[in-house]
Amino acid sequence: MYLDHAATSPIHPEVIDAMAKQMAIVGNASSLHTSGRNARGVVEESRERIAAALGARPSEVIFTSGGTESDNMAIKGTYRATRRIDDARRRLVVSGIEHHAVLDAVEALVAHEGAAVTWVEPTSDGVITAAAVRAAIEADGGPRTVALVSVMWANNEVGTVQPIAEIGAVCAEFAIPFHTDAVQAIGHVDVDFAASNTTMLALTGHKLGGPQGVGALLLARDAKLDPLTHGGGQERQVRSGTLDVAGIRGLAVAVELACAAREDEAARLVGLRDALIDGALALGLGIEISGAWTRGDSTSRLPGNAHLRVPGCDGDSMLYLLDAAGVECSTGSACQAGVPRPSHVLLAMGIPEERARGALRLTLGHTSTQADVDAFLEALPAVAERARRAQEATRKVS
Amino acid sequence: MYLDHAATSPIHPEVIDAMAKQMAIVGNASSLHTSGRNARGVVEESRERIAAALGARPSEVIFTSGGTESDNMAIKGTYRATRRIDDARRRLVVSGIEHHAVLDAVEALVAHEGAAVTWVEPTSDGVITAAAVRAAIEADGGPRTVALVSVMWANNEVGTVQPIAEIGAVCAEFAIPFHTDAVQAIGHVDVDFAASNTTMLALTGHKLGGPQGVGALLLARDAKLDPLTHGGGQERQVRSGTLDVAGIRGLAVAVELACAAREDEAARLVGLRDALIDGALALGLGIEISGAWTRGDSTSRLPGNAHLRVPGCDGDSMLYLLDAAGVECSTGSACQAGVPRPSHVLLAMGIPEERARGALRLTLGHTSTQADVDAFLEALPAVAERARRAQEATRKVS
Repeated sequence: MYLDHAATSPIHPEVIDAMAKQMAIVGNASSLHTSGRNARGVVEESRERIAAALGARPSEVIFTSGGTESDNMAIKGTYRATRRIDDARRRLVVSGIEHHAVLDAVEALVAHEGAAVTWVEPTSDGVITAAAVRAAIEADGGPRTVALVSVMWANNEVGTVQPIAEIGAVCAEFAIPFHTDAVQAIGHVDVDFAASNTTMLALTGHKLGGPQGVGALLLARDAKLDPLTHGGGQERQVRSGTLDVAGIRGLAVAVELACAAREDEAARLVGLRDALIDGALALGLGIEISGAWTRGDSTSRLPGNAHLRVPGCDGDSMLYLLDAAGVECSTGSACQAGVPRPSHVLLAMGIPEERARGALRLTLGHTSTQADVDAFLEALPAVAERARRAQEATRKVS
Repeated sequence: MYLDHAATSPIHPEVIDAMAKQMAIVGNASSLHTSGRNARGVVEESRERIAAALGARPSEVIFTSGGTESDNMAIKGTYRATRRIDDARRRLVVSGIEHHAVLDAVEALVAHEGAAVTWVEPTSDGVITAAAVRAAIEADGGPRTVALVSVMWANNEVGTVQPIAEIGAVCAEFAIPFHTDAVQAIGHVDVDFAASNTTMLALTGHKLGGPQGVGALLLARDAKLDPLTHGGGQERQVRSGTLDVAGIRGLAVAVELACAAREDEAARLVGLRDALIDGALALGLGIEISGAWTRGDSTSRLPGNAHLRVPGCDGDSMLYLLDAAGVECSTGSACQAGVPRPSHVLLAMGIPEERARGALRLTLGHTSTQADVDAFLEALPAVAERARRAQEATRKVS
């Protein structure tokens, strides 16, 4: 029972098939001969299909190795290019609930390259409002000191979907580049690059039924970005390196499948998610839900995301006990798994550390069924009971 | 007839099979549950197999998206980390025949981050001698101003294999980090990380029968490196991002296959290469060979590399005419394909621009046979004749 689609989602068989077929055909997309041109053709067709699915122009799709590289390119590349043009623009306006690929890139720029940050804190429901972004832009020296704004499209832990178009409009008003990490959003909520006024948008294959190790940065045509890597000059000179033709083909197939199925899947997953949350709340364990949750709603919270807090329990203990019962889930971001401190997302939402420790993230996706939900709900009472006893024993000892 | 293995080599069916099977199994290697631990197990087993094949310790294998990323990590990461510790170390000692992934990373540091370069020029045969590296280290302020040395293991255009262990010994004498781009070397010549005294070594899957989009940087345990990307802290905190489990598995299978077959394959390819060169020289077209070539030798020149210069012809014209005749090859690096200027490698070797323009690179690999060589030799005379007439016509017009 796999309830961890936000960490990585099973790859669609159609994607594996398309990739295996492509891998059997030799070709470097930079080569000038027939095999090279054929490989380039696959890349360009994939670029067009991804662009069409996401409201972007083909030339705005820059292929990368995944979400972390896309986020780092956007944040560091924009900061460095902007400062070269206008050294006064050193301030990054960043939401306090970003993925570590954004947070740690920002903190590296602060530590080593003279950047400053104005954090935008979420509401207690995990929402970053456009008004809060505006206030952050206007603080600390004002809009002329800002290099970029970064707010994720949907949060990877609590599933909150942000008002990206409204935030984009604020950024456009000040002509400030706006990056959004949409890794968790694509295929789950409606994402339109052009309509959202975003300058940069990060996505990755493995969260939407595609391969690991391949993703993209959507990059507006007039955006200025220093590359992270230099070399052959592929991808508009901003991302050098031999293109992964099969991976790119797989990404395009996955993006198309996810976007085509999105509305039906969202309705289906909302039903499963609501059943999971209703079932968990009915267990009498004092469970709390993180982030806004409205039954039947698929737009303000990711359709497949349920984030519970079980009082008196340690999340990691529950994770291992659930795993032993055949139910796989997480306590937060997989990229921070094993780090023994409560989630920065929950703390930013004002949830006390004590309660943040009992976090369980259950995320559903294209292979999820009612049987997954039932298995979780069946296992949870005994798991919570054992985790609570373990927690009490730990407290008595310390 | 595919004679462009140095651009990208066909993927072994065993690799495609292993990857397709792995892609069908869900798992993020950072997740703590069973699927995550199984994915992590595949990654760690792959790491061990690659390390064993290349004379490294498992912990020294850092997975990346390929050669360009590995080279950029090594060059920029070492420069930035070194300067933080000792600001006087701003000088990069770099061979003049590196791939653009190294050259352009170096030039970006010079343009934007205060680096200086001492170029090490090759002999007319394309060899970077240990004496030349020593002289470059001792020039321009001496060894205490050097941040790193970078010399590729084997050249991607003319196939020259460099005396890496000797250069490594010189670097070790001065305790200067030594990076080698071994993208073209793995599987073709004997590569032993520990024995070669290299600090960093770049490799990529798609040059050795593995997938595109996955590679590695071998990184000595005591090496200090600033990451290019920040985030989840994967790969010893130097390369964040969700690991591409299937790609890594494919890379390990390919490295093992290439290293296990290396000696037999080298002997076989040397036979084909020598037949190609002997055949080309016998055509009476005035062809010259770039780089040292000794019949039967598999150690000073890559076994599968033949680099010809056809006087009076433009390389790109020949490439297109050969392609029309069903023979695929290149004029130099695929990453520079379409750039209308003679190769920096040939110019550095002292080959006049006029002659460098007639370059043809024929590279053989695991799928090459005598039929490929025969097809090329059969097509070349008419191709050279047409290319020469076109070149003469161009001259008369201009």
